[in-house]
Amino acid sequence: MAGDSVLLAAVSVLSAFQQSYFAFQVGQARLKYKVVPPAVSGSPEFDRIFRAQQNCVEFYPIFLITLWMAGWYFNQVFAACLGLVYIYGRYQYFWGYSEEAKKRIPGFLLSLGILALLAVLGSLGIANSFLDEYLDLSIAKKHF
Amino acid sequence: MAGDSVLLAAVSVLSAFQQSYFAFQVGQARLKYKVVPPAVSGSPEFDRIFRAQQNCVEFYPIFLITLWMAGWYFNQVFAACLGLVYIYGRYQYFWGYSEEAKKRIPGFLLSLGILALLAVLGSLGIANSFLDEYLDLSIAKKHF
Amino acid sequence: MAGDSVLLAAVSVLSAFQQSYFAFQVGQARLKYKVVPPAVSGSPEFDRIFRAQQNCVEFYPIFLITLWMAGWYFNQVFAACLGLVYIYGRYQYFWGYSEEAKKRIPGFLLSLGILALLAVLGSLGIANSFLDEYLDLSIAKKHF
Repeated sequence: MAGDSVLLAAVSVLSAFQQSYFAFQVGQARLKYKVVPPAVSGSPEFDRIFRAQQNCVEFYPIFLITLWMAGWYFNQVFAACLGLVYIYGRYQYFWGYSEEAKKRIPGFLLSLGILALLAVLGSLGIANSFLDEYLDLSIAKKHF
Repeated sequence: MAGDSVLLAAVSVLSAFQQSYFAFQVGQARLKYKVVPPAVSGSPEFDRIFRAQQNCVEFYPIFLITLWMAGWYFNQVFAACLGLVYIYGRYQYFWGYSEEAKKRIPGFLLSLGILALLAVLGSLGIANSFLDEYLDLSIAKKHF
Repeated sequence: MAGDSVLLAAVSVLSAFQQSYFAFQVGQARLKYKVVPPAVSGSPEFDRIFRAQQNCVEFYPIFLITLWMAGWYFNQVFAACLGLVYIYGRYQYFWGYSEEAKKRIPGFLLSLGILALLAVLGSLGIANSFLDEYLDLSIAKKHF
């Protein structure tokens, strides 16, 4: 199993580094705009960076679970590639948002599209796996 | 392993759709109550919807890990059924909270009870698995 | 696989209990400082406890994924021990922060150091697994 998931594992650890990087940027923005904990608001610049990170946090478990489900039940290589695009979309979103609220849109839509795709592929793979196992109907070979 | 977890996978992807749905509802409430990002407060109606979603976000990783641990170490079918009840409880919580702060209670207690049950079943299964593997004591067969 | 991950599973369920405990403390602080939902601010004491919990929530998926990746691809026993230290660091962080904003630092740095270590060990294990599987180069035996 460990070998079967090595690409998913690599993308997951990369995304964990990215999440830590976003949290670090919030820390830097705290120093720059003098927003002392536990305050989470102060200047509009800080507010945007903080909200950008919060949004990434909200979607992170959704990303991880759809990545792994699509990778396990549909196709690992394809899911891992989509995962890389998601990480890129989140990067674009975070820095766009930190500049201007409107600039968060392109990266957000990209990451949302990837998430939808991962969820649909995961669902298809799971449905196929389910039919195969419980109803003994094989529509397509697993991991096609 | 993939076949062994197909019900857990199905419940996980369903819950990921639900989380995305809650996030989408916050976006809709932003438009309806004119709360422009990065603001996260404005009208009491928006505040309740936002807090409802935030609470679901907070508990989501706890739900996922206890679901999978209970499913892997105790019983997959039982854990998946509890997972479905959790998703229903969160639905009830979210829409209750969006109407009135007090109405969040029944769904919250339901989802919390399910979470406690999943955590206890997971712990029992893990303890049994641990004794089995490390101390060579088998109290009950795995996946009883 | 289930047997292969029993220590990771035990640490994960323990950390899920801890996260629930932090959320419960926020609920208690709501009663004590009379911060009625959906409000998330009121007294400085409540604000610190709330932010402490929020920070633990933000890092929780990062912790889980690096714990499992380090455990699966590097060494389970070592990863599980680091996981226990992380849980201790978060405990120290939460109660430190609840007393005084400055007292959050030692626990935060400890948990951050553990996270970095888990991420690096996971990356090394994944890189080794990847070379082994895709390039047929074995630098070190898996799970050394």
